Amino acid sequence: MFGLIGKMRAARGQRDAVIDVLRETTGALPGCLSYIVATDPADADAIWVTEVWTDQASHKASLQLPQVQAAIAKARPFIAGFEFQVETHPVGGVGLPASEKS
Amino acid sequence: MFGLIGKMRAARGQRDAVIDVLRETTGALPGCLSYIVATDPADADAIWVTEVWTDQASHKASLQLPQVQAAIAKARPFIAGFEFQVETHPVGGVGLPASEKS
Repeated sequence: MFGLIGKMRAARGQRDAVIDVLRETTGALPGCLSYIVATDPADADAIWVTEVWTDQASHKASLQLPQVQAAIAKARPFIAGFEFQVETHPVGGVGLPASEKS
Repeated sequence: MFGLIGKMRAARGQRDAVIDVLRETTGALPGCLSYIVATDPADADAIWVTEVWTDQASHKASLQLPQVQAAIAKARPFIAGFEFQVETHPVGGVGLPASEKS
């Protein structure tokens, strides 16, 4: 599996607008096992996104999907920047489809 | 919902031993919606854990469960330290039980 943990910063006051776009878009992307959007109680403009994909190719392919391209275009004006991103290799746990548990 | 994103460092060469303990323990903890364990391709002794709980009280209570206390005791000799931890407030996404999606 392929994972990403990232923190993005919304333009002041636009956090919830970005979150709405993220949540509208990620319902059924091929290969997406987990995509959790969170606010940060210590940082009002921050958004944490933790992702698990079947593999890196699925993630990369998702960025080319029309609905994802549209979401990126829609959210871009509300995003000030990306502050943190780490790639991970998820190995298991709770909250993944049963077939991916090893 | 209550979330945690954390990075722990295993003692040299003990990463997989720690992961085994984490995965054995988190199967069915009350209030645990997601608990994903991942390795870090850029850091051989690192373990990333991303957690989602129904609320902070569920997470706190889990630390007192006998199986969790036993796991902490079992893993402690293999853990060198905790390098990063952020508390989040998950608001939704893919990979959470349907009842928690809002």
